[in-house]
Amino acid sequence: MAQTVIEFFYDSISPYSYLASTQVDALAARQNAVVWWRPYFLGKVMEATGNRPPLTVPAKGKYMFKDLQLWSRYYGVPVQMPANFPASTVSAQRIGCALAAPRAGDWAKAISHAYWGLGRDISQLDVLKAVAIQLGWEGDEILALAQDPTAKEQLKLNTEEAVQRGAFGAPALFVGDTLFWGNDRLPLLEAFLAGKL
Amino acid sequence: MAQTVIEFFYDSISPYSYLASTQVDALAARQNAVVWWRPYFLGKVMEATGNRPPLTVPAKGKYMFKDLQLWSRYYGVPVQMPANFPASTVSAQRIGCALAAPRAGDWAKAISHAYWGLGRDISQLDVLKAVAIQLGWEGDEILALAQDPTAKEQLKLNTEEAVQRGAFGAPALFVGDTLFWGNDRLPLLEAFLAGKL
Repeated sequence: MAQTVIEFFYDSISPYSYLASTQVDALAARQNAVVWWRPYFLGKVMEATGNRPPLTVPAKGKYMFKDLQLWSRYYGVPVQMPANFPASTVSAQRIGCALAAPRAGDWAKAISHAYWGLGRDISQLDVLKAVAIQLGWEGDEILALAQDPTAKEQLKLNTEEAVQRGAFGAPALFVGDTLFWGNDRLPLLEAFLAGKL
Repeated sequence: MAQTVIEFFYDSISPYSYLASTQVDALAARQNAVVWWRPYFLGKVMEATGNRPPLTVPAKGKYMFKDLQLWSRYYGVPVQMPANFPASTVSAQRIGCALAAPRAGDWAKAISHAYWGLGRDISQLDVLKAVAIQLGWEGDEILALAQDPTAKEQLKLNTEEAVQRGAFGAPALFVGDTLFWGNDRLPLLEAFLAGKL
């Protein structure tokens, strides 16, 4: 039986992208699906759709911090508020665009974990290099990918495609034409893959 | 062992309040908790917090309609887009404020179902009367509650209290000081009640 593809549009700036990144592999394995990790740029998605980051509503921002702690315990994964937030994720996301599977997924999970699990400043190239080295990769080679014109272009294309297909926030998961927005839609996505919806 | 209270702030204008209203009783029963149904007025909550309805972001609105269909199948409950949306829910919410348990909960579920399950226009008094009669109640007596000054005041008080305690959307469920925002947080709420978080 052919494997279904879960397109996982993420930005490492998004804590809910991080949370979902800790769960989606196991979900995919349970449902005989594969994850296609697709970096995009959330700022542009919001700009294009007129959506606003949760922190622009103070009460929502306050709730979000507590909500993240609850999810942290619910999933059993570390979550902390990075000292540098919001940090630029352009380099991290571009590198993600330059990598093929399975490294694309390894990178997506590693940078999200570095930022939201460990609080590291992933806008800094030396932090990204350290993440690459920890993955057993050649650090300078990986950093160079942040300047790769094809990767830059791919990040733009992914962002435009996501918006065109209906995304307005992060993470945006697609199974074919069906969008599942947010870490909290993983149960729906799984039921959908299981043919229950 | 004492029962924990789940405070369920809802507005029948909110489809996610409706969805949660179809699940929260069973959840409470599983966790030896009771639901305290608390009508509030979402428009004022949004105004007070600077939050905006999802439909003000077109892509979010488009997603929401599909999302509601998925939840409908996930829960096995009917959902449809009411022809009159947004309808005024002031009378419906005021009546909810005037009723004591267990009728407060019966009413909350019945008006939410009438609006989101059946698409009826709950801004109309004859529709509210029909809902009351279907619950086996005296229709005109129930309608009169919409003019009850204490109920009017209670709706304002509930709204102000919810905002003060951190609510910015609907439904807003509280277990003590801990806010769970949205139908999609019911799994977290249940884990919290089960002592797992």
